[in-house]
Amino acid sequence: MNLDWDAAARRTVQRCRALACYSEEPGWTTRTYLSRPMRDVHRALTEWLAPCGCAVAIDAAGNLRAVRSGGGAGLRPAIFRGAASLVIGSHLDTVLHAGAFDGVLGVVMGVALLESLGPREWPFDIELIGFSEEEGVRFSLPFLGSRAVTGDLDEAVVAIISPAIREFGLDPAELPLARLRRPITGYLEFHIEQGPVLEQLGLPVGIVEAIAGQSRLEVRFEGTAAHAGTTPPQLRKDALAGAAEWIAAVERSMRDTPGLVATVGRITAEPGAPNVIAGAAGASLDIRHAHDEIRHRAAQGLTKDAEAIAHSRGLRVCVETRSDLPATPMDRHFVALLEEAVRAAGYPVHRMPSGAGHDAMILAAHVPAAMLFIQSPGGLSHCPQESVREEDVAAALACGAEFLSVLERQHTGAGE
Amino acid sequence: MNLDWDAAARRTVQRCRALACYSEEPGWTTRTYLSRPMRDVHRALTEWLAPCGCAVAIDAAGNLRAVRSGGGAGLRPAIFRGAASLVIGSHLDTVLHAGAFDGVLGVVMGVALLESLGPREWPFDIELIGFSEEEGVRFSLPFLGSRAVTGDLDEAVVAIISPAIREFGLDPAELPLARLRRPITGYLEFHIEQGPVLEQLGLPVGIVEAIAGQSRLEVRFEGTAAHAGTTPPQLRKDALAGAAEWIAAVERSMRDTPGLVATVGRITAEPGAPNVIAGAAGASLDIRHAHDEIRHRAAQGLTKDAEAIAHSRGLRVCVETRSDLPATPMDRHFVALLEEAVRAAGYPVHRMPSGAGHDAMILAAHVPAAMLFIQSPGGLSHCPQESVREEDVAAALACGAEFLSVLERQHTGAGE
Repeated sequence: MNLDWDAAARRTVQRCRALACYSEEPGWTTRTYLSRPMRDVHRALTEWLAPCGCAVAIDAAGNLRAVRSGGGAGLRPAIFRGAASLVIGSHLDTVLHAGAFDGVLGVVMGVALLESLGPREWPFDIELIGFSEEEGVRFSLPFLGSRAVTGDLDEAVVAIISPAIREFGLDPAELPLARLRRPITGYLEFHIEQGPVLEQLGLPVGIVEAIAGQSRLEVRFEGTAAHAGTTPPQLRKDALAGAAEWIAAVERSMRDTPGLVATVGRITAEPGAPNVIAGAAGASLDIRHAHDEIRHRAAQGLTKDAEAIAHSRGLRVCVETRSDLPATPMDRHFVALLEEAVRAAGYPVHRMPSGAGHDAMILAAHVPAAMLFIQSPGGLSHCPQESVREEDVAAALACGAEFLSVLERQHTGAGE
Repeated sequence: MNLDWDAAARRTVQRCRALACYSEEPGWTTRTYLSRPMRDVHRALTEWLAPCGCAVAIDAAGNLRAVRSGGGAGLRPAIFRGAASLVIGSHLDTVLHAGAFDGVLGVVMGVALLESLGPREWPFDIELIGFSEEEGVRFSLPFLGSRAVTGDLDEAVVAIISPAIREFGLDPAELPLARLRRPITGYLEFHIEQGPVLEQLGLPVGIVEAIAGQSRLEVRFEGTAAHAGTTPPQLRKDALAGAAEWIAAVERSMRDTPGLVATVGRITAEPGAPNVIAGAAGASLDIRHAHDEIRHRAAQGLTKDAEAIAHSRGLRVCVETRSDLPATPMDRHFVALLEEAVRAAGYPVHRMPSGAGHDAMILAAHVPAAMLFIQSPGGLSHCPQESVREEDVAAALACGAEFLSVLERQHTGAGE
């Protein structure tokens, strides 16, 4: 196995930057579901994959599917011999004005791992998937690619996306054929962290143990708009002051609950004039945790806090839950194998939740799934400044290779 | 003197409601500086004033000036006989979508008081002024009417408003003639409170002892915009959380400082998305007190609070003072006379600051000034729901009549 991961990492970063040029907007990286530049990405990946002996195809959902037969280049896929295959994947679409690594890095790292195998036989097939859609930009419907692969696209969604599928030259009638062919050992996704934790800890990689559940709430306080100069303190019903007190409660809840993140990112005051006491104030709440019951308890607690604050100030309050997405734990066994691989590669093991959603969340409902995060310098993502360090990519590739070795030993029944 | 103030109050309220129909916008009351409906207001007031024996004119700034000679109807004004005159006034312009009483009530009450004198001789002249501009709507320049009368219009302002003056058929060159002719005993203004204090106290009227000074500040916290799901608590630099903590400090400062009102009426968070930690947050501060040194100390304290909050959170903060208007005390002697009048009329004496600016603020720099507030039901003003109770107007008229009597006794040298 190739141990010079530095060169592979350098090539991987270069490839990601090259793919970032395939964009709907000159000067930016913007590549939405089945947009024209997605063809260029498919072409480039297909060229890189050809020497690996992969059969490459685009499925009806627009996912790039590359199968590397365990029998080595040119041999019949092991799947026909009854051996379960490993799926490695991430997404190829981007947000508007994206960076070069969110999603794409995971696919291009998959290419590097397949390259590292050379023509050797391997006890299982490896399928690399470049998902066509994860960000939800084009149709406000995220995870279209992975949901097609797991059979989780419902008819209404298919109806919405079918014209785009046809326009890309694909056939929506063939969507059922896009589903994963079993048996499958599991799913592995490499992805940039998109947060600052690994950088803070000085670690190249982190093992995702769960994708956090997420609640989205809207809170509205209503009081009485009044003259800022003529209304004395004791007669005020200041909705913004109530909202500010509640933001402090949100921070307190986060501080007091390990693993919880809670954010008020949007606030409005009405009428919003400097000399008028706010008659109404609205605030958003985004709250996430790897354990749903902790998240629900926190959301309930913050709802009670809002009610208590409103009561003590003579305000009315309305708390509306806009969304409630459950947490997705990664597969315990697969996570343990990944941990073994990271340790074997010589890197410190750090388990962490993912605060953001990923394709692995969709796959995890169907097959054992695990994710490896790569450090995001500055925690920056979803912006052109998004980056990765080559040495961290090299570390992640080494871990990925060790993971393949761990699985290999499992398949061949060899101990460590 | 007429003691049936109930009937006069009823007529006064009816007249205010009639004048409210003279508007630039059908269905609303909107009457800005020298707008067409101002002519109709002038005409109606002139008709009501004619039987009082007043000489009525419109000065070059568009103020209605009615002089009631102390010698009784038809006699030469006492001013020519060397006696100081009393000025009663308030403004005739309105905000957009105004109520019927802000400003107008003070002028129409002046008409009622002049009516109550009948043809009798009086030891001093009374000049009633309906100021043309107080709200600052048309040119964003408030107090144009009273500043013309006191000679406080500078050349730049005159240049801005001259076209409107000419369009109304007046001559800007005659602005110097609009100045008050001395000697003047003092200035009395009746005005709705525009706040909830008198209603809360169950009082019809209140004596203004000072018009509060006012500071306007803009505070901007800057942190780091980051992903709400992937950024743990200890790595956040949440500008909105900092602003919320500071709003609590503003409330605390108001609670701990008697007479202070402090308001954050406007807030912004950037980028303002529910799933993004705010990288910047801006807030306005409106802070008022009857004593400038207390207001300045509070503003300094809140600036320090903002800096301390920013420091403890790793944020940057910028505090900018946008305006700093000094407090205007009313004349001690005149306030004492007004207090005597309120007591003589049989009403409880309540002294209070005015949180809002009034024409009396401009006059007070030149002549002894006093103001009587009339209860604002619900504290409502600057909206169509703005109202007054007839019994409160009757009480205020009785107080005004007693004030004239107190001044009369002073002029004639009679004791109480």
